[in-house]
Amino acid sequence: MSKCKVCRGPAVIDLPRHNANFCAEHLQQLCRRQVEKAIADHEMLEPGERVLVAVSGGKDSLAVWDMLVELGYEADGLYIGLGIGEYSDVSGRYARDFADARGLRLRTIDLRDEHGYDVPTASQATRRVPCSACGLSKRHLFDSAAREGGYDVVATGHNLDDEAAVLLGNTLRWDIDYLARQLPALPGGDGFPRKVKPLVRLTERETAAWCIVRGIDYQIEECPMAAGNKHLGYKATLNQLEARSPGAKASFYLGFVDRMAPLLAGHSRAAVDGLRACATCGSPTTNEVCAFCHLVEVSAAHEPVPVEMLSRGRRR
Amino acid sequence: MSKCKVCRGPAVIDLPRHNANFCAEHLQQLCRRQVEKAIADHEMLEPGERVLVAVSGGKDSLAVWDMLVELGYEADGLYIGLGIGEYSDVSGRYARDFADARGLRLRTIDLRDEHGYDVPTASQATRRVPCSACGLSKRHLFDSAAREGGYDVVATGHNLDDEAAVLLGNTLRWDIDYLARQLPALPGGDGFPRKVKPLVRLTERETAAWCIVRGIDYQIEECPMAAGNKHLGYKATLNQLEARSPGAKASFYLGFVDRMAPLLAGHSRAAVDGLRACATCGSPTTNEVCAFCHLVEVSAAHEPVPVEMLSRGRRR
Repeated sequence: MSKCKVCRGPAVIDLPRHNANFCAEHLQQLCRRQVEKAIADHEMLEPGERVLVAVSGGKDSLAVWDMLVELGYEADGLYIGLGIGEYSDVSGRYARDFADARGLRLRTIDLRDEHGYDVPTASQATRRVPCSACGLSKRHLFDSAAREGGYDVVATGHNLDDEAAVLLGNTLRWDIDYLARQLPALPGGDGFPRKVKPLVRLTERETAAWCIVRGIDYQIEECPMAAGNKHLGYKATLNQLEARSPGAKASFYLGFVDRMAPLLAGHSRAAVDGLRACATCGSPTTNEVCAFCHLVEVSAAHEPVPVEMLSRGRRR
Repeated sequence: MSKCKVCRGPAVIDLPRHNANFCAEHLQQLCRRQVEKAIADHEMLEPGERVLVAVSGGKDSLAVWDMLVELGYEADGLYIGLGIGEYSDVSGRYARDFADARGLRLRTIDLRDEHGYDVPTASQATRRVPCSACGLSKRHLFDSAAREGGYDVVATGHNLDDEAAVLLGNTLRWDIDYLARQLPALPGGDGFPRKVKPLVRLTERETAAWCIVRGIDYQIEECPMAAGNKHLGYKATLNQLEARSPGAKASFYLGFVDRMAPLLAGHSRAAVDGLRACATCGSPTTNEVCAFCHLVEVSAAHEPVPVEMLSRGRRR
């Protein structure tokens, strides 16, 4: 039986990159400290700020909400109904149950009810992978909800595995615009709320373990529309590199943030081209009409597409 | 039977990243054009310049020598005897046979005869991986031989697979100094000859095919001291990414050269700290004594270490 590195009690998890095992209590201590360090290092949050948490019902978003509340922040949740069949129904239920059990405030926006489309339909209408319409919708709606609700900052549950995989994809393409914006904290301004990722120092295995030891029930299924996407392929590649040299994933992501990101400051498209107000909704954009309004225009005119049909027919 | 994309004759190779097959003649045409494009894009060589080719006896160095001679450059070879047992003996023979058959000039420097050490011994003495002492020795000796011989430029056989693998390693560590110097052509100056890599647009499969259709015999064994090193691991990772999306490797390396490298200009350690003459040999260095002279001092005092002993005992 392996023992906790801190107290020698029975361990519940082994973490090769820390070369140690931890019990439930000291796993939580480790997670809390990593989150506090991320918040401090990147000036993510000030005491007393109002935080809007982007909640999906998965382990990461519930973990970050739980931790921020525990750390004393006034953190409300926003759940977006993406219309991805039963997957969305179940995810929404986990989000609501979590909020109800803790007396937290959760707002819900349903894409079809409020904007006339859902992710499967938008994917078909735009002939692009579903993750593209999904990410775009979520970014826009979290930003505008934060603006309208008077929140200082939007917090998301992106963990180290997520960020390292996105970084690997951006790096393999040397997409300077995306690289210049891939930071643990994006300052607000120009009509955007500040955006922060307090879990960037925690792996997905660690956030899952947090939820388990804290008794948080979450959606464990991967999104059915994400199966086979490049992001999951990059995660697998990084897991192989990590297995060959433990710590490689953290060193890749944190090294980027420390040493490369400062050299890219000012090279994002928004910094280069400047932003203006979307002619339709007023949100900041580099184009005349923002990408969200364009998506709504293209997608809302279509009949709903069932998830199953799209999974069979869609491009990879 | 697959057919050549150009002439519909019988193909000898399929190249998924070009989505085509090629016969022996049009494979050579493709290789020649890629090399000419690399030379032109990166201003590697001017007509009439004297080129010193770094020759190992492997496919890449013999292919680049062959191509440069065919393109009309005055290209001499330099072979360095690294003292890696039978592997070095066989490699040297291939290099000499190639030069003799074509009436080309090949100079040889033997590490043990001229500097009192060999790569296995240096690895043991420095307690570092053999590839470290090997690369350092070769860089120094090619540079100084070019200076002394009045060559304008040193050409090496680094291919796309090599460069992409080195780039992946440098990127995973975000080693800004190495990234800033990882260019297809490094301008001369400060006592350094210009250094060029004319094969950066060709994969190792393509350079091997070049040698086969040109009747060039080469050392096909991998260096026994390189087995299991990180560089080979990164090559394997990139081959997996390439299998999932053909062209990914070229896009990674060439995208770096096009879009990222310009942003790193001026960030190498030499550019930041400045260079001075090595107190021992006069070569340019950022330190008081250059890394080569330090290596000679540490390694030449040791008894020779047989390759086999080192392979068993060395660190990975």
